[in-house]
Amino acid sequence: MPLTMSNSLNSFIEENRERLLSELKEYLAIPSISTLPEHKEDVRSAAGFVAESLKSAGLENVKLIQPESISGLAGGRHPLVYADWLHAPGKPTILCYGHYDVQPPDPLHEWISPPFEPTVRGGDLYARGASDDKGQMFAHIKAVEVLNAIHGEPTLNLRFLIEGEEEVGGETIAAYIANHKEHLKADAALVSDTAMYAADTPTICTGLRGMIQMEWEAHSSDRDLHSGVYGGVAPNAVFGLIELLARCKNNEGTITIPGIYDDVCDPAPLEKESWAHLPFDETNYRVAEVGSSQLTGERGYSVFERTWARPTFEVHGIRGGFTGPGSKSVIPAQAVAKVSIRLVPDQDPEKVLKIVRQFVADNSPEGVEVEVRELAAAPASVVSPDHFAIAKAAQALEELFGNKTVYVRCGGSVPVVGDIATHLGIPSAMMGFGLPDDRLHSPNEKFHLDNYYKAIHAVARFFELLGE
Amino acid sequence: MPLTMSNSLNSFIEENRERLLSELKEYLAIPSISTLPEHKEDVRSAAGFVAESLKSAGLENVKLIQPESISGLAGGRHPLVYADWLHAPGKPTILCYGHYDVQPPDPLHEWISPPFEPTVRGGDLYARGASDDKGQMFAHIKAVEVLNAIHGEPTLNLRFLIEGEEEVGGETIAAYIANHKEHLKADAALVSDTAMYAADTPTICTGLRGMIQMEWEAHSSDRDLHSGVYGGVAPNAVFGLIELLARCKNNEGTITIPGIYDDVCDPAPLEKESWAHLPFDETNYRVAEVGSSQLTGERGYSVFERTWARPTFEVHGIRGGFTGPGSKSVIPAQAVAKVSIRLVPDQDPEKVLKIVRQFVADNSPEGVEVEVRELAAAPASVVSPDHFAIAKAAQALEELFGNKTVYVRCGGSVPVVGDIATHLGIPSAMMGFGLPDDRLHSPNEKFHLDNYYKAIHAVARFFELLGE
Repeated sequence: MPLTMSNSLNSFIEENRERLLSELKEYLAIPSISTLPEHKEDVRSAAGFVAESLKSAGLENVKLIQPESISGLAGGRHPLVYADWLHAPGKPTILCYGHYDVQPPDPLHEWISPPFEPTVRGGDLYARGASDDKGQMFAHIKAVEVLNAIHGEPTLNLRFLIEGEEEVGGETIAAYIANHKEHLKADAALVSDTAMYAADTPTICTGLRGMIQMEWEAHSSDRDLHSGVYGGVAPNAVFGLIELLARCKNNEGTITIPGIYDDVCDPAPLEKESWAHLPFDETNYRVAEVGSSQLTGERGYSVFERTWARPTFEVHGIRGGFTGPGSKSVIPAQAVAKVSIRLVPDQDPEKVLKIVRQFVADNSPEGVEVEVRELAAAPASVVSPDHFAIAKAAQALEELFGNKTVYVRCGGSVPVVGDIATHLGIPSAMMGFGLPDDRLHSPNEKFHLDNYYKAIHAVARFFELLGE
Repeated sequence: MPLTMSNSLNSFIEENRERLLSELKEYLAIPSISTLPEHKEDVRSAAGFVAESLKSAGLENVKLIQPESISGLAGGRHPLVYADWLHAPGKPTILCYGHYDVQPPDPLHEWISPPFEPTVRGGDLYARGASDDKGQMFAHIKAVEVLNAIHGEPTLNLRFLIEGEEEVGGETIAAYIANHKEHLKADAALVSDTAMYAADTPTICTGLRGMIQMEWEAHSSDRDLHSGVYGGVAPNAVFGLIELLARCKNNEGTITIPGIYDDVCDPAPLEKESWAHLPFDETNYRVAEVGSSQLTGERGYSVFERTWARPTFEVHGIRGGFTGPGSKSVIPAQAVAKVSIRLVPDQDPEKVLKIVRQFVADNSPEGVEVEVRELAAAPASVVSPDHFAIAKAAQALEELFGNKTVYVRCGGSVPVVGDIATHLGIPSAMMGFGLPDDRLHSPNEKFHLDNYYKAIHAVARFFELLGE
């Protein structure tokens, strides 16, 4: 362990190992599956557990915020948990985010130990939600407890905002943040809902891609036609949609919609530098993670650039015509595809959507009309590694792991990070403690036990550094 | 009526109008729906009705041929009806084909009169099977009756082979023809299962397209992947299949699979000449029949050429990935499309299939493996208008209608015509008496009553001419 590490932090955690584990186990045992109505009470019970934990850690103004109290939201939702401690004038304020809901555990028979009976095996704690996100967010609360034990009270100002709908779209927290800018005032957010690049590599995620989700629907006639009688002259909606989609990306992985790359911002030099030194075995990645015979995508860009810093054009699904057993000689009149474009800084979703619509209008094959329906749109988020909160997070991690912090991005989207940036105007320090093999959303989800303790330590040290 | 028309034929039909109609109505009232197991007895009853009608018309060796007696066929099928009269040595032998089974009538509520209560309205006889094919094939039997009434006996040799599975694939007759070449020996076949080009236009169909039906299945990984994490590097089976399919045909309707047009045989000059003079309103055809904003297909070819004499590449359906409501950020690992190629003379299905497989192997996008599965394959059929039987059919029609016979083709397939050509080595005279608006396979199917009588007349005259 490096000399710079705080010995008192370390000894407190050592002395309380068993208690810290048993409390987390108690939390993980609550089946707070937000998507299943029959677990509504469990979800509520998890919110209550979080509120009690925040109180025990000395936080104030602890309350459940009912979705019904947030204007414009329909019922069937789950409460937010809020708490704060704001008695460190002149010190920064950190908004700690996390979620207490979990994914359904099925297929149940694939679990070695039951998903809601947290079990330690070989240094890992197995349970649904262990890594995503109960284990990680609970570490934030425990870090406050450690801080209080050492310093008597937090050394900075803290707010907690924990949601119970992350796995079902997060609409409640999005609406709440948009409507409570003053109430949530802070200097930065802390989000631990991502993974470390590798087991011993302290990792901060500095960017998330945005996304436009669309449905493209093609029509060629008011009815399906007999392909014997009309084959050769009748437009075919399925083939028309195929032709159009094929025109959107070439066989080198470049999106061919004019203007799509216009506003794409290259990653910062510090990020590129960091990515170039990440340990990476492309063959192992391709075989073990992607499971494909080849990797594809834009020539001249690394795997990290292609998955983190370049826009994508993806068809998630397509359906049209006859696809049952055997044959049916039909010229289909209708077809639909689910299409998305992942966005990177500084692409504007509205602008991209507009050029996409124009491209579709200009390139729909003759006799085929294609309607583009927007399903959702969110811009990319990026934070600067130079922001003081990100820098302190990196320092805390480096002290603890004894390795240089790497700055990665995440190719997916964490919408709350965008909401925080847009409405509160602050960056999120994405300090993740998950590992790439945590099996989020799958059977046998686990959290490496050592990472739980390290998360408590790192977050406590992050708070300590910010309060200095 | 032209002077050449046989007056005795005419008077016999006039005198027997009511009886000829009531017998057809009795036949149409039998719901011989071959695809529905609950109508198995009705199908058998229709076979019995046909056998009795053949006996009454003086044909000999009338028998039902049970599918079980044909090697290699599983159960659940329907009998063939066979009959012959072979006492005109030195005269030609004609094999009369037809089918006594019908399509299901649903949606029932759209029928103005019930599908199995044959009803005459405005000069049309409404019933399921009226035109397809009971009305047309029954006219063959009645023509023999007319011939006997006038000449005492048939003036040529006749065989009848009527099937009960045309609407469900026709496997029994295909197997029977392949195994009974000697027993079915004839100079030409007579098939009345097509339509006239227009109400007053005597029409002979001289060609049918063949078809290769396939299923193309694409795989890119052993599992679906998260498009946030892997979007930009992971191959996508849906997009890969889209890219491949789009490479098969260009935006001018030309199939771009090398060699696909190599053996394509142009229509005969007599056919082209005939097509150039067919009355045709392209706008009306596009709006009323195709229902599309534009007609598509190969530049430089007429609508008739494109639908009758040119191969097509058609995607009948496609399915892959997520297509439910909302969004799911998946990179799909699997996709499947139903693909067909319509064939024209002299394309060889095996040869075409081979070049298609080669093209798929050469053009599958990187990281995507595509398997081509053959579902069915049959070559095109074409008959020469110069064959003596076709010439006599044309003459019979011209005498009756007083108009020049037009030679058309049919873009679809009638597999039995191919089986007859392949195994018996004889052409089929496709004299159709249906009209383009007969609503085959749809509610309110009808047969123009006058065409029923004209069919009896024309076929009797055809027999007469062949026996001269």
